Amino acid sequence: MLKIGMKFLLTGVIALGAGAVFAGEQAAVKVSAEMFTVNNLWMLVATALVFIMHLGFATLEAGLTRSKNTVNILFKNVMIIAIGLLTYALAGFNLMYNGDNWVFGKFFGFGGFGLSCPDGAAGLIGYNGGAYTYWTDFIFQGMFAATAATIVSGAVAERVKLDSFLIFSTIYVALVYPIVGSWGWGKGWLDQLNFHDFAGSTFVHSVGGWAALAAVILLGPRTGKYVHGVSKPIWGHNMPLATIGALLLWFGWFGFNGGSVLSADPGAVSYVFVTTSLAAAAGIVAASLTSWKFQKHPDLSMVLNGCLAGLVGVTAGADVLSIKASIIVGAVAGIIVILAVFMFDRLHLDDPVGALSVHLVCGIWGTLAVGIFCDKYSFVSQLIGVLAAGAFCTAGAFAIFLPIKYVMGIRMPVEDEIRGLDICEHGMDSYHGFQIFTTQ
Amino acid sequence: MLKIGMKFLLTGVIALGAGAVFAGEQAAVKVSAEMFTVNNLWMLVATALVFIMHLGFATLEAGLTRSKNTVNILFKNVMIIAIGLLTYALAGFNLMYNGDNWVFGKFFGFGGFGLSCPDGAAGLIGYNGGAYTYWTDFIFQGMFAATAATIVSGAVAERVKLDSFLIFSTIYVALVYPIVGSWGWGKGWLDQLNFHDFAGSTFVHSVGGWAALAAVILLGPRTGKYVHGVSKPIWGHNMPLATIGALLLWFGWFGFNGGSVLSADPGAVSYVFVTTSLAAAAGIVAASLTSWKFQKHPDLSMVLNGCLAGLVGVTAGADVLSIKASIIVGAVAGIIVILAVFMFDRLHLDDPVGALSVHLVCGIWGTLAVGIFCDKYSFVSQLIGVLAAGAFCTAGAFAIFLPIKYVMGIRMPVEDEIRGLDICEHGMDSYHGFQIFTTQ
Amino acid sequence: MLKIGMKFLLTGVIALGAGAVFAGEQAAVKVSAEMFTVNNLWMLVATALVFIMHLGFATLEAGLTRSKNTVNILFKNVMIIAIGLLTYALAGFNLMYNGDNWVFGKFFGFGGFGLSCPDGAAGLIGYNGGAYTYWTDFIFQGMFAATAATIVSGAVAERVKLDSFLIFSTIYVALVYPIVGSWGWGKGWLDQLNFHDFAGSTFVHSVGGWAALAAVILLGPRTGKYVHGVSKPIWGHNMPLATIGALLLWFGWFGFNGGSVLSADPGAVSYVFVTTSLAAAAGIVAASLTSWKFQKHPDLSMVLNGCLAGLVGVTAGADVLSIKASIIVGAVAGIIVILAVFMFDRLHLDDPVGALSVHLVCGIWGTLAVGIFCDKYSFVSQLIGVLAAGAFCTAGAFAIFLPIKYVMGIRMPVEDEIRGLDICEHGMDSYHGFQIFTTQ
Repeated sequence: MLKIGMKFLLTGVIALGAGAVFAGEQAAVKVSAEMFTVNNLWMLVATALVFIMHLGFATLEAGLTRSKNTVNILFKNVMIIAIGLLTYALAGFNLMYNGDNWVFGKFFGFGGFGLSCPDGAAGLIGYNGGAYTYWTDFIFQGMFAATAATIVSGAVAERVKLDSFLIFSTIYVALVYPIVGSWGWGKGWLDQLNFHDFAGSTFVHSVGGWAALAAVILLGPRTGKYVHGVSKPIWGHNMPLATIGALLLWFGWFGFNGGSVLSADPGAVSYVFVTTSLAAAAGIVAASLTSWKFQKHPDLSMVLNGCLAGLVGVTAGADVLSIKASIIVGAVAGIIVILAVFMFDRLHLDDPVGALSVHLVCGIWGTLAVGIFCDKYSFVSQLIGVLAAGAFCTAGAFAIFLPIKYVMGIRMPVEDEIRGLDICEHGMDSYHGFQIFTTQ
Repeated sequence: MLKIGMKFLLTGVIALGAGAVFAGEQAAVKVSAEMFTVNNLWMLVATALVFIMHLGFATLEAGLTRSKNTVNILFKNVMIIAIGLLTYALAGFNLMYNGDNWVFGKFFGFGGFGLSCPDGAAGLIGYNGGAYTYWTDFIFQGMFAATAATIVSGAVAERVKLDSFLIFSTIYVALVYPIVGSWGWGKGWLDQLNFHDFAGSTFVHSVGGWAALAAVILLGPRTGKYVHGVSKPIWGHNMPLATIGALLLWFGWFGFNGGSVLSADPGAVSYVFVTTSLAAAAGIVAASLTSWKFQKHPDLSMVLNGCLAGLVGVTAGADVLSIKASIIVGAVAGIIVILAVFMFDRLHLDDPVGALSVHLVCGIWGTLAVGIFCDKYSFVSQLIGVLAAGAFCTAGAFAIFLPIKYVMGIRMPVEDEIRGLDICEHGMDSYHGFQIFTTQ
Repeated sequence: MLKIGMKFLLTGVIALGAGAVFAGEQAAVKVSAEMFTVNNLWMLVATALVFIMHLGFATLEAGLTRSKNTVNILFKNVMIIAIGLLTYALAGFNLMYNGDNWVFGKFFGFGGFGLSCPDGAAGLIGYNGGAYTYWTDFIFQGMFAATAATIVSGAVAERVKLDSFLIFSTIYVALVYPIVGSWGWGKGWLDQLNFHDFAGSTFVHSVGGWAALAAVILLGPRTGKYVHGVSKPIWGHNMPLATIGALLLWFGWFGFNGGSVLSADPGAVSYVFVTTSLAAAAGIVAASLTSWKFQKHPDLSMVLNGCLAGLVGVTAGADVLSIKASIIVGAVAGIIVILAVFMFDRLHLDDPVGALSVHLVCGIWGTLAVGIFCDKYSFVSQLIGVLAAGAFCTAGAFAIFLPIKYVMGIRMPVEDEIRGLDICEHGMDSYHGFQIFTTQ
């Protein structure tokens, strides 16, 4: 999310008679009040689109799991948005974008607690060469922050203790996510290595994915998933809900990737719309063919994951991949997401919604693909970014989860897990009045 | 929704060689064609976002009630959008914004029937200092109009007669909503008192809430809700649907509050996005803790209502509350919404979805909070606005509902209520083929 | 989707000192960089809105059919988006907009395979007088392309073979849709006749509708639909899902019609928002009254179709119909959609979701209505366009479907149809664990 496509913006400067000249370091470039307004507007629309991704995650996860745990999943996802925004306002924003207040190399910096617009409440400072206000900057980035925890939510579904998960999420979103993000988007050491992660294949999706991996290892599989070494299918309970989720995620991704241009630059934003959409489409087609071949039936949940895999895959390079490369990146993601699902299952790493395969594996793939398909970026730098994020996030996730595990436990008692988290944790059922098989 | 944040706009004026100078009283300020276009665009995007709130209300209400009444709820909500838009085109718009055609003090005015753009079909008159066209003005406001009736719909769910409800809604939306609105947004007597209701804590949410209160009193509780003075829980049938509703409402609220800036002013719109989102987040966290403490379990439906409570609460002052104040307003709303649910239940005022607690109580709270937290506004003025709206709306609702009650009845026969409104009113069931407990 | 409302844009030209002058034939008009940016932004937001219509179609179709075929419907709809985008990138875009590379009269032309921006990857060429980039042009039009196939999907639901349907869709979207579209929007022979189809009552909805008609004739009705000449009702399984679908479609239609202005022109886009919304509202009210009268109960599915009928009806003339005319067009559409449902049923043309009535009948109505209500356009030209599209699309659909029928079959075996396509085609059920009547 560094400055891109500003060439056009720069040429659009109009000398104004009065008022619309932006002060401050971050606004060396002067743009007209009109350009400032349209850039800022796009960032706000993109913010709303990223917001709706949380509904996408909530419905996708709920649809792909069992109805006895649905309230629990919805509850977690609603809480995570709130926790993400509030902790990001309290500290995360200033950890990620520290305004050059580095404390330890270019690895860790902090700009202080709370929101404080340098320009007062008006927030008119033109960030990114006059592209948006301080408040826009915060709310757009804040919507991203909660995403990482949402990814974990899917992987630990149907067995994690609610309070333990919420404590974990709060700390992970408040500390680990912004620190890793500062390495690249906050102009830290990875940025200096010319590491390129446009909208977050690594900084959002892998960051969530590594924590999901740590959590899945610590939690163990759902009761009844692996019996005498044999994997038993546990079906999702609501495929329309899962489909709503996947397509709302694509819808929101127009803001996630399109907004990461950080301006309304016509060439850059429209190009990102095209690469993003074609990668999603290629992920769908590739996953459907792969599933049809290997599973004999075309599996809807695999195709939905193929769509998301394409989107995660193209996210690191949506601005720089060629049209052909974006289709290849999406198609490869659609294939490897299915192979990864089988691989994790064989490893007995129980991930109810395929979050590891989609977000971790395709997040890595997308980041490396930038090094493969774009001459401007080095494969080695991309690999260093992937490994560094992996090491830090995995360590961070264990460091947070382990104490919680020993102090208060992270897993529901097995009898509650069998009865369902909705009744045991929330005292209600998700579809009251419907007759549902007790074995499910 | 009075002019705010236009300072920046004013500074952005560019003298144009030709054509883009707007005529008419409402367009004393000249802005460039570009600024006009971007302002107008934001208002149209906001219109679409407010529209989607109707889907949010429909799914929230349907999810929180029983499956035997779901078709009825969906039908009502779809009809209300249509009725709202058509009556607003016929009369409401010109009642609310009468163009200084006051008939009775600054309490009632009327600009004539139908839509007639002063500038012909092109509608290019630049309202609000060149911010949007006549048609944008109408369609943005028209989307708001139906909201008040939708709020009533939730409170009377599962027992109201369909035709009676639709007649009530038509009249209430056509007359009461725009008249009260004219007092503030139409530059009537409350505006002259410096009463501040930015996007409608009072003019939309309380206006709906007061009518809901009148309707609940006239209708009485659902059969089986209070047995020998004891309140029996009646569970909602579909929590994913309710969650979709609450999060779509938040999504739409970006347009509801953000669009109420009435321009794309970067500082003002982005600030409103931040206060709105932080209040919603604070409402979620506060409601979850309150519910966890009082109900022993964290209740998802309470948390969804906490989210909406925070949104309703911040709506009156989203433009003027400080960041801290917006968090406090949201958190307090998240607490009082739960207390209000218990209070109404103790009063045997049966409100299936908590509409009174969310829209009436938090609408009042949000309006008063502007007087508490902002020095610029007087608590007394805010209180006068709350009381005046309450008196007029309650009187209006009774005046409409009572004749309907005596002429054609407002309540379904008890045997139809028990069998379900879907079969009795619509001849169909909402989930055909699903086995559903008959006791539900 | 020809140029409209550019008058205002033209007046907004500002001489720029540097850089923002657009080269190329398609950009004879110079606009400021700001105007280019805001126009382009609206087209991208509209693209996202048209995208979400696919979720609307998926949920509407799924909700109005039986739960045993839900996964199949969702699968088809997700695949169609992907196929539509990829084939449009490969060939469709250059068939529809051939850049004056006509091969056969003004009936058929082709601009070559693949996407190739004349201006390189930046795509900055200002199409439509500086309104949007090459990439925006492609992605907006690409989102439209898949719609035609989606319409067919609804009509053939619950009995079509998956692989046959996907092959049909791929060819129809790749060839028939863009060729017919080129006649009007690609400046072909219908454009020269002054045929007016603003956003696609004919070029999208009828094009899908004619293929649906051909498919329904070739497929025959669902097993059990017509027994001894008597039509049996087959109920949809999920009315909340259907309602989500219809309202998401309306939401997306703001982009479908509003984006068809092809710029952010304030007058034109806001006027289209108003006519579109009032027609939908009139369709709802008219359909509810018609249904209430003829079916004795107000039927929710009829009202949802009335909403869509109003939207389809106004689509051809949303830019040129007067406000009153748009309400009449919507209301008439809301009536004839119900009559058409009964007519097709009497003809034993089994259309599970009413796609023929909504998209074909109201698409024709809307196109003719432009000739009836607007003096500028000739009824005869409109009729010629309707008939020509009908002849070509029906012939094209038969020409694609017939070989598929004889080579691989197009209909599921009756025992699989009875068991349900979800289990037989996909090996999974849509609501695992729920008790569902086996007769359904």
